[in-house]
Amino acid sequence: MSMANENIQLGQAMQAALQEANTALHTWLEHYRPYTSNGRCAAYIPALANADPSQLGVTIIGSDGKLAQSGDCEALFTLQSVSKVIGFIAACVEHGAAYVLERVDVEPTGDAFNSIVRLEVHKPGKPFNPMINAGAITVSSLLGGKSPQQKIDSILAFIEKMVGRRVGINEEVYQSEWQTADRNRSLAYYLKGTGFLESSVEQALEVYLKECSIEVHTQDIAMIGLVLAHDGYHPFRKEQLFPKEVAKLAKALMVTCGMYNASGKFAAFIGVPAKSGVSGGIMAAVPTHASAPDSPFPAGCGIGIYGPAIDEYGNSVAGGMLLKHIAKEWDFNIF
Amino acid sequence: MSMANENIQLGQAMQAALQEANTALHTWLEHYRPYTSNGRCAAYIPALANADPSQLGVTIIGSDGKLAQSGDCEALFTLQSVSKVIGFIAACVEHGAAYVLERVDVEPTGDAFNSIVRLEVHKPGKPFNPMINAGAITVSSLLGGKSPQQKIDSILAFIEKMVGRRVGINEEVYQSEWQTADRNRSLAYYLKGTGFLESSVEQALEVYLKECSIEVHTQDIAMIGLVLAHDGYHPFRKEQLFPKEVAKLAKALMVTCGMYNASGKFAAFIGVPAKSGVSGGIMAAVPTHASAPDSPFPAGCGIGIYGPAIDEYGNSVAGGMLLKHIAKEWDFNIF
Amino acid sequence: MSMANENIQLGQAMQAALQEANTALHTWLEHYRPYTSNGRCAAYIPALANADPSQLGVTIIGSDGKLAQSGDCEALFTLQSVSKVIGFIAACVEHGAAYVLERVDVEPTGDAFNSIVRLEVHKPGKPFNPMINAGAITVSSLLGGKSPQQKIDSILAFIEKMVGRRVGINEEVYQSEWQTADRNRSLAYYLKGTGFLESSVEQALEVYLKECSIEVHTQDIAMIGLVLAHDGYHPFRKEQLFPKEVAKLAKALMVTCGMYNASGKFAAFIGVPAKSGVSGGIMAAVPTHASAPDSPFPAGCGIGIYGPAIDEYGNSVAGGMLLKHIAKEWDFNIF
Amino acid sequence: MSMANENIQLGQAMQAALQEANTALHTWLEHYRPYTSNGRCAAYIPALANADPSQLGVTIIGSDGKLAQSGDCEALFTLQSVSKVIGFIAACVEHGAAYVLERVDVEPTGDAFNSIVRLEVHKPGKPFNPMINAGAITVSSLLGGKSPQQKIDSILAFIEKMVGRRVGINEEVYQSEWQTADRNRSLAYYLKGTGFLESSVEQALEVYLKECSIEVHTQDIAMIGLVLAHDGYHPFRKEQLFPKEVAKLAKALMVTCGMYNASGKFAAFIGVPAKSGVSGGIMAAVPTHASAPDSPFPAGCGIGIYGPAIDEYGNSVAGGMLLKHIAKEWDFNIF
Repeated sequence: MSMANENIQLGQAMQAALQEANTALHTWLEHYRPYTSNGRCAAYIPALANADPSQLGVTIIGSDGKLAQSGDCEALFTLQSVSKVIGFIAACVEHGAAYVLERVDVEPTGDAFNSIVRLEVHKPGKPFNPMINAGAITVSSLLGGKSPQQKIDSILAFIEKMVGRRVGINEEVYQSEWQTADRNRSLAYYLKGTGFLESSVEQALEVYLKECSIEVHTQDIAMIGLVLAHDGYHPFRKEQLFPKEVAKLAKALMVTCGMYNASGKFAAFIGVPAKSGVSGGIMAAVPTHASAPDSPFPAGCGIGIYGPAIDEYGNSVAGGMLLKHIAKEWDFNIF
Repeated sequence: MSMANENIQLGQAMQAALQEANTALHTWLEHYRPYTSNGRCAAYIPALANADPSQLGVTIIGSDGKLAQSGDCEALFTLQSVSKVIGFIAACVEHGAAYVLERVDVEPTGDAFNSIVRLEVHKPGKPFNPMINAGAITVSSLLGGKSPQQKIDSILAFIEKMVGRRVGINEEVYQSEWQTADRNRSLAYYLKGTGFLESSVEQALEVYLKECSIEVHTQDIAMIGLVLAHDGYHPFRKEQLFPKEVAKLAKALMVTCGMYNASGKFAAFIGVPAKSGVSGGIMAAVPTHASAPDSPFPAGCGIGIYGPAIDEYGNSVAGGMLLKHIAKEWDFNIF
Repeated sequence: MSMANENIQLGQAMQAALQEANTALHTWLEHYRPYTSNGRCAAYIPALANADPSQLGVTIIGSDGKLAQSGDCEALFTLQSVSKVIGFIAACVEHGAAYVLERVDVEPTGDAFNSIVRLEVHKPGKPFNPMINAGAITVSSLLGGKSPQQKIDSILAFIEKMVGRRVGINEEVYQSEWQTADRNRSLAYYLKGTGFLESSVEQALEVYLKECSIEVHTQDIAMIGLVLAHDGYHPFRKEQLFPKEVAKLAKALMVTCGMYNASGKFAAFIGVPAKSGVSGGIMAAVPTHASAPDSPFPAGCGIGIYGPAIDEYGNSVAGGMLLKHIAKEWDFNIF
Repeated sequence: MSMANENIQLGQAMQAALQEANTALHTWLEHYRPYTSNGRCAAYIPALANADPSQLGVTIIGSDGKLAQSGDCEALFTLQSVSKVIGFIAACVEHGAAYVLERVDVEPTGDAFNSIVRLEVHKPGKPFNPMINAGAITVSSLLGGKSPQQKIDSILAFIEKMVGRRVGINEEVYQSEWQTADRNRSLAYYLKGTGFLESSVEQALEVYLKECSIEVHTQDIAMIGLVLAHDGYHPFRKEQLFPKEVAKLAKALMVTCGMYNASGKFAAFIGVPAKSGVSGGIMAAVPTHASAPDSPFPAGCGIGIYGPAIDEYGNSVAGGMLLKHIAKEWDFNIF
C-alpha cells in the first residue's frame, strides 16, 4: 500500500490533485458496485466460487508515484489469466521474442479461451496467441529454469522486481486447478502431439496452473501495468526490466486478445491495453502518451482492478464498467 | 499533391526537416522496392492482375501540412478493403454507432476475410466485425441514401470532404468485381437469410463493390488517415467531420482486424492503426500522441502506401515492410 | 389407390394375409398418431406451417402388388428433401454416375442439411453428398434438359414412369420456397464460386425448389420406394427404369445420409433405406432379401409415410416411430 | 486354419465349389496385389511402419464352414480400429446398448478418425459414434471388469468365443502406441472434462490401446465377421453370443462409419458392412440374405482381409479393391 508513497515525495498541489482523484474514484467505484449483481463468480473451483461477488476494488499508480485506491483494493485474488501476459514477457526475456513466436502466434481468434478447434483446423496447429490457454501452456514450457519449481521461482522473482514484494501461490487454488484441469490437459497433450510443447505435459501444466494461482492484490497488478505502460522501464526502481519491444508486443496482445472474446469491444469502447482473469482481476496499462495532460495521471499509470463477479465472457462485470468510466473521464485511450 | 501545400505556409526550418524526411523516405522506399518480388498481384480480376508488381509508393501528410512522398505515390489504385473503414465510419455517421453495432460486432476472428463459417457456427450469425466481407456488406446496406447510387454518392461526398477532391469509381474494376462476386453473393444471401442485411442483396453488393472500386492515390488515403489520426477532425479544414468516438472505434478496428489475418502481427510489430486492401493499398493513422516529438511528424500524420504485390495474407509485401521501417525509425507506435 | 390392384390378381390366401396386414397397420398407425403432438410442422413457409399436425398416413406396396394403407394415406404433400434421391438418380441416368460423382461426393457429414461450413473448410469445396442441400442443388444443375422447365419436365416424366400417374408442382409452395430461399441461394452462389455448379444459380435454384415442391401422396413415394427395392426394376411395368448400380448407390446414400442428422440412428435402430423431407414424408425401400419370408411382404416392398409433425432433426415424429414398428414387427432390416 | 474344417463335413459338390472359389480368389488377389504399391504402411509407430507393404491376404468363412483363403492370410497383424466394433459389442453386452448409447451416439461425421473439433462444437460433447477414436475411448471405459487388465481379459475371452483360439496382445505395438498416444490422451482428457469417460484417462487409454494391439490373422476377423453376419449367432458353436439388436447396430455402424472417411464410398460402391484398421485389416460381414444364392457362399460369410499398404483414408488399398471385386463377382450387397 505504501511502497510508492515511501519512494516518492509528493508536492502539495499534487496532494490536492491526488485527493480529488481518490474522491472521484471512490464515487465511481461505489456507483458501479451494484452492477456486480449482474455477474457471477467463476464456479469451476471452490476457491473462486466462494469469493464475495459484491467486492470491487481498484488501485491506480501514476508514473510519478501517485497512488489512488478505493474499495476492496487490498483483497487477495489469484492472477488466473492475468498471468498469461507476465509469463509471455518472462519467456521472451528468457529466449528472445523470436524464439517464443516460433511456438506461438500473435493473432486474435474470436474463439473461447479454452478452445481446441483451431489447433486441429489450422495446420500445423501453432497456438494462435499466448492469451488463450493453448498458447499460455506452450509459453509456460518456455520459462527460465529446468524444473517446474525453477520456472515458477523465476516468474515469482520477475514479479517481485515489478511489484516490490514477494507474492506467493495460493496452494488451495492450485490444488483445485490441478484436479479440474482435464480440458487443459487435453490442450497440452494436443500440443505435445503436434510438437509445440517443449517440456512434458505434466511439467507444463504444473507451471501454468501455478502461475494462474499466484495471489495478488490490486496494487500488485497496477504496478505491473505501470511497468508495461513505461515499456518495461520501472519508474521507481529506474531500471529497464524487459525490452521495450517486448512491452509493445505484450500491450498489443492485451488489446487484440486480452479480454477474452470481448477484446474487440474493450479496444473499441475503452482503448486501454488490459488483461483480465476469471478470478475478476483486470490489469491495465496507460502509457504516458495515451494519458490526457489534464488528468490526475498525466504521465501514464498502471491500473489494477478486482471484482470477482464476472460476465459471460469471463471479465469482471463492474470492473470493466469502472475501467471504461475511468478511461472516459480521464481521457485514457491509445487510439 | 498540392492541397496541403496550398493551405499551409511552412517555415524554413520546417522545410529543411521536410527535405530530410523526404530523402530518408526515398532511401527506405527504394530499399524495400526489391521485396515486391516476394509478392504477387491479386489475380481474381484482370484489372488487379495487370498491375505493375514492382510499383511502390508512399505519401505522408503531417498535421501541420507537411507532405512527404516517394516512389509511385501518384499511381491510381482501387480502395478494395481500405473502403471498409470508410464505409463503417459513414454508416456510424448516418445511424449512430449503436445502431450499426447491433448489426455488426467488433471482435476479431482469425478467419479469412471472405469466410462464411462463423456466420453459421456462432448464432445468431451477426458478422464479427466490419473489416471482413460479411461485416462490410452488412455495413454497406446501412449507408445514407435510399438507392445504391445515393449511397455511393454519399460515400464519395464523404471522401471528398476528407481528401479535398472528388474521387470516382473505376468502372472496369467494378464490372469485374460484379462478375466475380459469387462468394460475396453467398455471404450476402446468408446475411439476408439471418436478417442482418437491411437492403436487398443486389443493392448491398452494388454499393459494396462500388466502394471497393473507388480509385485513389496514396495522398488520398494519407489524408483520410490524417483525419482518423485527429479523431475525425480535419486539421486543414478545421472541421470535425465525424465524432471522436467513431474515430477511436475505427482505429481500434484497424488494429484488431485491419490487416487481414496478419492484424495481430501488425499490432505487435508495428503498432500503428492501419487498413489494407488486396489492390496493395495501406492506409495508416498516427495520432499526435503516438508520434515521437523528435520525428519529422511530431503532431501525428496520415500515411498512404501503395504496392500491388501482396503476400499470402493479402497485404502489400513491400508496403508492410516500409510501414514497419517508418514506424520504427520515427517511433510511431500507439502502445 | 388402385393401380396396383388393377394390374395384379391376388389369390384368396393372399387376400386374407393382406386383410390381416391392413388391420395390423391400422392398429399401429392409430397407436402412434398421438405422438404427432411431440412434433411441429415446419414453419418457414405458410403452406407447410398450415398442415394438420395430427395427420399420419402410410402406404405399403408389395412386390406382388399387395397394397396396404392406413390413415391419411391420400393426403397430398410436397416431396421436399425426398426429391433429393429422385433427382440424384435422374442425374445419374442422364450423365452416368461417374460424371455426377465428380461433382458431389457420397460421404455423410453429421452437419445440418443446410450447412455451408464444410464447403469452406474442406477444400476444394465439393459437396459431401447429394442428400444435403449443397449437394442436391449441385445435382439439380445436372438434370436432363437445357432450361429449368425441361429439367423439371424430365423429372416429372421420370416420376410418372415409377408411380404411374403424372404428379405436379404445388405452385403456392414453390412460390414460398422461392421467396425464402436466401440460405439456398447462399449455398448455390458458394458452389458457383468454387465451380461445382454447372448451370446458373437462378436456374439451379428454380429446378431444385420445384423438385421440392412436387406434390404427392404416400402411394406415390411407396411406388418409388418399391422400384428402389427392386434395384431400379419396376415389378409391375416389368421394366428396368435405371441401372442396378445407381439404385444400390441411392439406397446406400439413404442409409448413410437420408434421415438428416438422425441417419445413423435410423440405420442403427430401423435398418431400412429411407429418405425424409421436412413436409413430413418418408420414403422407404425394403429389398426382397431384407424382408422376412413370413412377413406380409416377403418379396420386399416400398413404403410411403406422411406425418407433417416433425422432430428436431426434420423427420416425421410419428412417421419414424411407425416405420420402426413396422420394420421390427415384419422383420425388415438390411443388416 | 482348421477349426472350420474340423467342425464341418463338406459334401463333394461343395468341395468342388470350394475349389473353384479358392481358385477365383487366388486369381483376384494376385491381380490386385500390385496395387499395394499405391499405398503406404502407417508410419506413426515402427511396428506398423516395418510391415511388408506388398502383403495381401484374405480368408472367407462361409456359414456352412466353407473356408476360402489366399495370399498372406496367415500373416499376423494388430486389430487397430477393427477392435472398435468388438469393443462396442462387448460394452453393449456388459451394460446393454441403451446404457452405452447414452455415452456415445451413432451418427457419422465426415471428420478424421482422431478429430477433436466436434467434441467442442456440438454440445454437450458426446462422441458422435464408436468408430472414431473419441467414441472408442469412451466405449473402452465401459468394458466389463474393474481394472484395465480385467477389461482386456474380458475382451480377449469374448474374441476367443468367436474365433476359437486365444489371441494375445502384441506388446511391442502396445508400447509404441502408448508412447505416441498424445492425441488420444488429448481426446480422453477432453472426454473426461465433459463427463463422458467413466474410468480414469490412463485406464481407458490402456484398455483402448491394448485392444488396438490385439494380434490376429485374417481367419480370426473372418470368424468375427461371420458371427456378425449371423446377428450374433455362432453357426459352428450354435450359440447366440450377443443379441441380434446389437449385431444389427454394429453392422449399421460399420456401414455408416466403419471405413474412416471413405465409409460412404464403401457403402455406395461395395455395400458390405466392413471395418478397417490402419494396420491394413478389413473385417466384413455378409449376411445370408445379402449373399447371392448362386455364389460359393449362399448362406452368407465373414471376410477377413489384410494388406498393410493403406490409402489416404487409412484403408488397405489393395484390400479395399479386392473386397469390392469379391462383392461384385459374388453379388454380396446389403442394399
